[in-house]
Amino acid sequence: MATPVTIFDTTLRDGTQGEGISLSVEDKLKIAQKLDHLGVHYIEGGWPGSNGKDIEFFHRSKELNLSQAKITAFGSTRRKDSNAETDPNLNRLIESGVSVATIFGKSWDFHVHTAIQTTLDENLNMIYDSVRYLKSRGLEVIYDAEHFFDGYKNNPEYALSTIKKAEEAGADWIVLCDTNGGSLPGEVTEIVGLVCSTLKTRVGIHAHNDCELGVANSLAAVQAGARQVQGTLNGLGERCGNANLCSVIPNLQLKLNYSCISDEQLQSLTSVARYVSEIANMNMPVNQPYVGAAAFAHKGGIHVSAIMRHAKTYEHIVPELVGNKQRILVSELAGQSNVLAKAQEMNLDMNNETTQTKQIIEKIKELEHQGYSFEGADASLELLLRRAFGDIPDMFTVDSFKLIVGKNGGASISSEAIVKLQVNGESVYMAAEGNGPVNALDNALRKALVQYYPDIEQMHLSDYKVRVINEKDATAAKVRVLIESTDFDNTWSTVGVSENVIEASWEALVDSIRYALIGKTRIDNQTASAERLGIVNH
Amino acid sequence: MATPVTIFDTTLRDGTQGEGISLSVEDKLKIAQKLDHLGVHYIEGGWPGSNGKDIEFFHRSKELNLSQAKITAFGSTRRKDSNAETDPNLNRLIESGVSVATIFGKSWDFHVHTAIQTTLDENLNMIYDSVRYLKSRGLEVIYDAEHFFDGYKNNPEYALSTIKKAEEAGADWIVLCDTNGGSLPGEVTEIVGLVCSTLKTRVGIHAHNDCELGVANSLAAVQAGARQVQGTLNGLGERCGNANLCSVIPNLQLKLNYSCISDEQLQSLTSVARYVSEIANMNMPVNQPYVGAAAFAHKGGIHVSAIMRHAKTYEHIVPELVGNKQRILVSELAGQSNVLAKAQEMNLDMNNETTQTKQIIEKIKELEHQGYSFEGADASLELLLRRAFGDIPDMFTVDSFKLIVGKNGGASISSEAIVKLQVNGESVYMAAEGNGPVNALDNALRKALVQYYPDIEQMHLSDYKVRVINEKDATAAKVRVLIESTDFDNTWSTVGVSENVIEASWEALVDSIRYALIGKTRIDNQTASAERLGIVNH
Repeated sequence: MATPVTIFDTTLRDGTQGEGISLSVEDKLKIAQKLDHLGVHYIEGGWPGSNGKDIEFFHRSKELNLSQAKITAFGSTRRKDSNAETDPNLNRLIESGVSVATIFGKSWDFHVHTAIQTTLDENLNMIYDSVRYLKSRGLEVIYDAEHFFDGYKNNPEYALSTIKKAEEAGADWIVLCDTNGGSLPGEVTEIVGLVCSTLKTRVGIHAHNDCELGVANSLAAVQAGARQVQGTLNGLGERCGNANLCSVIPNLQLKLNYSCISDEQLQSLTSVARYVSEIANMNMPVNQPYVGAAAFAHKGGIHVSAIMRHAKTYEHIVPELVGNKQRILVSELAGQSNVLAKAQEMNLDMNNETTQTKQIIEKIKELEHQGYSFEGADASLELLLRRAFGDIPDMFTVDSFKLIVGKNGGASISSEAIVKLQVNGESVYMAAEGNGPVNALDNALRKALVQYYPDIEQMHLSDYKVRVINEKDATAAKVRVLIESTDFDNTWSTVGVSENVIEASWEALVDSIRYALIGKTRIDNQTASAERLGIVNH
Repeated sequence: MATPVTIFDTTLRDGTQGEGISLSVEDKLKIAQKLDHLGVHYIEGGWPGSNGKDIEFFHRSKELNLSQAKITAFGSTRRKDSNAETDPNLNRLIESGVSVATIFGKSWDFHVHTAIQTTLDENLNMIYDSVRYLKSRGLEVIYDAEHFFDGYKNNPEYALSTIKKAEEAGADWIVLCDTNGGSLPGEVTEIVGLVCSTLKTRVGIHAHNDCELGVANSLAAVQAGARQVQGTLNGLGERCGNANLCSVIPNLQLKLNYSCISDEQLQSLTSVARYVSEIANMNMPVNQPYVGAAAFAHKGGIHVSAIMRHAKTYEHIVPELVGNKQRILVSELAGQSNVLAKAQEMNLDMNNETTQTKQIIEKIKELEHQGYSFEGADASLELLLRRAFGDIPDMFTVDSFKLIVGKNGGASISSEAIVKLQVNGESVYMAAEGNGPVNALDNALRKALVQYYPDIEQMHLSDYKVRVINEKDATAAKVRVLIESTDFDNTWSTVGVSENVIEASWEALVDSIRYALIGKTRIDNQTASAERLGIVNH
């Protein structure tokens, strides 16, 4: 039997303290719903004592239909030299209507003196009174021992006395926080082990990632006896972030035989992680462990040919266990095996022997030599392969385009685009403005096509990257443009290369829209490849 | 005395196998120079057996003037059923002219059967012959035991026999690789400890980050007796990347009392990490431990007020130890001391006290908030400071510019620019073509100015970089353009920011030419005044 570990998510509280992260109440409600689907046990929604937005969240969270997760509100122990019963912060927790309160108190004598400037005894009273008051009002209380590890290293006796006070007052969980993220796994193992053998209360861990050890410290704590892990999705959070639950959960469950969430819930990990990243308007690093787009992507030729024989040769787990999938990157480092693997993914009958295959490989090599890179442009590669197999209907052709960008004195800059297309045997001539050259071209192209293909209203560009390839030629150098587009269900990437940034953008733009228009074919293929992997049965 | 640990950097080899990373030979040479300054002991430059670009790197790396680092080339053991002496891959290592070869061989019986499809005995011979051959040619040999941990877990006896073979053949280092990145710190501790007590040869660790444990596993290995760590800057590399040396080094040195590089070199860590990120055209995550822009950034109100009392309250180390700095996120940054130092460099009388200084700092903060970054744009910063001090002659002003880019059917794309300037009280109206929009603008601008300032014929743009700042807004996002220019004697960089890539490029372009013209005037003036004072004689 796998030992259960409780997952406490603080994406909505500690996560929002990261640089560049700001969530509306609406965003928070959406994320809370997803976290519940993922199967986390506690969702820390915010700090009602600190701002009005969080109060609104707790109010509206009652409308959520959560299947399992408990919503908890965060706060601190009472102010020094006062009463818990009249403490505004503690009363806000009660008023928020949650059934679980999470409060933090000081464990580090240095902080008691320097930050809150009171006596060690008064700090103990603050902890006791606060936990006691919340318990007396019927709440479940999770006590976060802030800076516990730094406190223990500085004054073990005092640090232990603070959590013993919380236990004495009836706390349901005592969570040891490595608030500054400076502790190492060896220290965590030793200190958590000692606390677990001292307390009767269940113990948790709250780690930060300042040494790039947030995940390692969380695992060390569980192995030493902790039974709750606090963290955030994608490791969002103050400074270098909190322990990343997207890595902690699969490590505990797939590698160490603990049980956190169900197998089905674990298979939703990648999509929930990407959803949160989208809502938080953060770029998820492609190389994020387990859930990143490159987590199971293979580029080196030797790796790819081994992978074709057996995925286990270069994959530490089966990607589908966390809802991710294998990808073969086509690049100069890779050989023919990568292209063949890609074609197989698309159900194209391509093998080593035929002249057609050799021609396609030659064509890709030539394009890569010109500066194309298909490893970040799956959709352009798919169009190329399908075109070679005559598998693409002619949705539209481009006769011409023109772009005019101008600025007169202090006036703001203007961008206008004119496109001429042939669609369904008709000539379409269309102009549009935009707040930049690519935006103007994008607008004109869609305006010309939407009357024939209304579905393209649902897609939009979600990312735009420019890279100069041969930099030494400066403004006469070639540039590579990568465009990422999305229609909510799917995301695809296209590439364009030219000495002219406008032409390269145009090429990627046209590919992106063409790919969206043949979307039906794409969806059929995904189903087929899922069948091949044995994931889907009908 | 701190125990020394050898640092082996593979940013230029394993790092380039990460998705989206492609380095030119020029890029690689620049990075190698920086790695040497940082103080790493080995720089793995590439795989000469796999591609021509890497052969050129090893050829040209001999021009580098490295103070300490040894360049090493990567390759595999000989092919099965053949001789080491005639193996093309091994001979490429010798021909590359390096003094250190790094070769990998198989430790995992599953891989021997599945990937290279030979017998366990032949694999042992491949290892022995290859190491022996390279040693017989006078090379230092680092043996990378691929998949050692997976191999050991599957068949400990066979895995150990492979590294004993490498030892017997004379390998100088035996490096245990967690190639698939699936191992946990506890396993690493146990297996490395056992290997260290079995071998006489020095042992190293090569960890990947697939479980977000690359750094933790590297530390565990060193604590169990390994004395070499292989990794990459910023954790670049295949799939989820390699162990991040930017975290491994400070953890070993500041937390565990090992010695890797000097204290001064450690203070360059942040700038080297950011340089590599810039050259590789990657966005460094703001929350990257130790070196990220947010690694010591404080947002929460309680944190900020405690930090004002004592930084240690929420910082695990002094940021300057790794060349980073504290930031308070409410007020945007702008290293005042950097600005003051810069002004001093320009002989501008600027100090903390004056209103003028405060206004300039405010202005810089505001521009940084808009997306400007002066770290890579010294010339733009200098123009800004000189302008504030009224120290810039009006060489020209821009009335307007217009750009027309068009493509008609199969014809090649055309780019035309029209500029209208005021120079020396005259109106100049000029048009030019170019092989791209920025090139057309550059040509028109120079054509308009060359009659007044013939010296600008000697300057040209040498680098052009575009970066999307807030990517999620796609084509309506802001872009930052960096332009580097040179007149052979000097190189300078300028920046432009706009939602419109053309406007941002124009801004950087105008700054670049203005800086060139001012520099020339200033030098002429200095020469004239030097002549007047009798310092220069001709």
